[in-house]
Amino acid sequence: MGRIITVTTDFGLNDYFVGVMKGVILSINPDVCIVDINNNIRRHDIMQGAFSISSSFRYFPSGTIHLVVVDPGVGSRRRAIVVSCEGHYFIGPDNGVFTFLFQESNDYQIYEITNSSFMCDSISFTFHGRDIFAPVSAHLSLGKPISAVGKEVFDPVMLDINPPIITENRIIGEVIYVDTFGNLITNIKADLISEGCDVVVSGLKVGTIKDSYSSVKEGEVVALIGSSGYLEIAVNKGSAKEYFSSTKPVVEVIKS
Amino acid sequence: MGRIITVTTDFGLNDYFVGVMKGVILSINPDVCIVDINNNIRRHDIMQGAFSISSSFRYFPSGTIHLVVVDPGVGSRRRAIVVSCEGHYFIGPDNGVFTFLFQESNDYQIYEITNSSFMCDSISFTFHGRDIFAPVSAHLSLGKPISAVGKEVFDPVMLDINPPIITENRIIGEVIYVDTFGNLITNIKADLISEGCDVVVSGLKVGTIKDSYSSVKEGEVVALIGSSGYLEIAVNKGSAKEYFSSTKPVVEVIKS
Amino acid sequence: MGRIITVTTDFGLNDYFVGVMKGVILSINPDVCIVDINNNIRRHDIMQGAFSISSSFRYFPSGTIHLVVVDPGVGSRRRAIVVSCEGHYFIGPDNGVFTFLFQESNDYQIYEITNSSFMCDSISFTFHGRDIFAPVSAHLSLGKPISAVGKEVFDPVMLDINPPIITENRIIGEVIYVDTFGNLITNIKADLISEGCDVVVSGLKVGTIKDSYSSVKEGEVVALIGSSGYLEIAVNKGSAKEYFSSTKPVVEVIKS
Repeated sequence: MGRIITVTTDFGLNDYFVGVMKGVILSINPDVCIVDINNNIRRHDIMQGAFSISSSFRYFPSGTIHLVVVDPGVGSRRRAIVVSCEGHYFIGPDNGVFTFLFQESNDYQIYEITNSSFMCDSISFTFHGRDIFAPVSAHLSLGKPISAVGKEVFDPVMLDINPPIITENRIIGEVIYVDTFGNLITNIKADLISEGCDVVVSGLKVGTIKDSYSSVKEGEVVALIGSSGYLEIAVNKGSAKEYFSSTKPVVEVIKS
Repeated sequence: MGRIITVTTDFGLNDYFVGVMKGVILSINPDVCIVDINNNIRRHDIMQGAFSISSSFRYFPSGTIHLVVVDPGVGSRRRAIVVSCEGHYFIGPDNGVFTFLFQESNDYQIYEITNSSFMCDSISFTFHGRDIFAPVSAHLSLGKPISAVGKEVFDPVMLDINPPIITENRIIGEVIYVDTFGNLITNIKADLISEGCDVVVSGLKVGTIKDSYSSVKEGEVVALIGSSGYLEIAVNKGSAKEYFSSTKPVVEVIKS
Repeated sequence: MGRIITVTTDFGLNDYFVGVMKGVILSINPDVCIVDINNNIRRHDIMQGAFSISSSFRYFPSGTIHLVVVDPGVGSRRRAIVVSCEGHYFIGPDNGVFTFLFQESNDYQIYEITNSSFMCDSISFTFHGRDIFAPVSAHLSLGKPISAVGKEVFDPVMLDINPPIITENRIIGEVIYVDTFGNLITNIKADLISEGCDVVVSGLKVGTIKDSYSSVKEGEVVALIGSSGYLEIAVNKGSAKEYFSSTKPVVEVIKS
């Protein structure tokens, strides 16, 4: 297994919590390379965590271990799991944060973490990132098999994500991620869209799909295939989120 | 000595200052592993820096070197020190930022940094993190003895931290740290509290101490032993700081 | 070439974009050490990116590779370049973000990135940080010669930066960088200023140049030579930016 562990949490960067998780990992495996993906997931926003990890993990080397701790139910009976998927490993709560992996791949296995030898000696009720998820990731990075963490699980919790509605002459989608720049990323994948389609956002005709933000004038709305492979609504040098005063406009693709 | 250096500062993440400190360290010891604990300590908040490092250092391997640069008096005559405590090393200004280490441990030694061969060639008056603290940490990570930095010191500056007031039938504490989630961490340690105690916050009866945030309904106040081992006041999926419109409510534990 | 790659972007820390760039780098060279300089450059602020990298690169070891992705024109025809300067390597868009390097040094070479074997297999129009700049940095860290990326360039884009105006009895400068603390860093270099000069900021007499922030009382304005080697206007334990209600006051040095 790899020597890279990535970190995705909703802990923010104003406390010492992420640092402590890294200390726990380095105490078990001092040779591991730890990389932050995003520690500013909105608090308790499992959907944002799910989109973030599914959009980023494939850019890391095979064998990378991904910690994903967006865990509003910490201390309750929700399960802790390890997922093996496409040669990568994922560790986190069983609350839907791995939904996109299960939707997009048939190649996965899930194990519930119950083996206490993978955990810290004493387990708090409020910080499983430190006491369970971080040490499990470190032990896996040392080469322990994932089946050693506990029993296989076949009924993971899934988020209720709407697929786009596809009719004879249009595709009706919704926004599933808003990035820092206010770009609106929809649930409409590039391969659903044929050339020459027109895009309409909350009734506004945006026109055909362009190549880049700068294909339109500054301040104008543009529809393009974003870097994650989904239809994205943006404003050149501006914010589509502010333009539409909404993070949830209806996005329609009119078939050509 | 270890190959890990942690970084805690009030420099924020909007400038290049933390990056420059890391460049100085890697120029002296390119094989060191640098881990951020928290670079968003509130500006000049020595108390927050002190709580942050004392709550996190034990999760790192023995031999780790901890840089703590919360330094409102940079350029004045305050001393620069290295502390050896419980197998860890700490570097920073002598302004109270290591108060909790000295309160909680009897196993420490302190040296004033005066040996210029541990520093950069030219020392600015405004950025000792770069010119003194970072190079000292890098030289120590190469195995130089801490006694080489300068003379031993026996009178470190201490913050004036109130202990909880303990009476026959109650413990009266105060909040010493507010985390990102608005959880209020008090100065009342877990071992002071016996089972069945009731907690009162600014006159509001919170009830007995629970295991986890989700032991109460969403939006309700809960008292629990937080992950740092102190009594903590929280609101399930909310913010205790906002609930009490204060970061400094009085917290009372009524003995059972 | 070195094993260190630094990262400077305007991507912020609320998305997975910086993490993905690191994944791409580690997929090509898993042994590289990646260090963030600043990922909170203001969106599209090429000037801030330019000042940030020129003020920080010299603190890293010779051979370090610096990724600088502040790229409002991504997807347009702006060139992508590698710069070799003073033993360091710089990778980014040709939009002026390396202006200070070209102004301060005569020792540089510039190459346009056109060799697709240094890039990802498919190039998006919106995320060249991931698809071009990150893989180029990783390939260079493996020892490939920079001349292999493409043809040499002799006409890089330069920002229009005003030098200070120097008259017989005064130097009139402007603010080129405002740091997190509200300190105003001017375009007046230390070596322009002789001892005993008086400083005037937007008509306010600030007095002679002091050594440190704490050379004046709390809340008072102080002029000093900042850690980057430029004249800086600060307020002890306060914010000069707020004090002058402006990030662009006129700064005059009256020769003595």
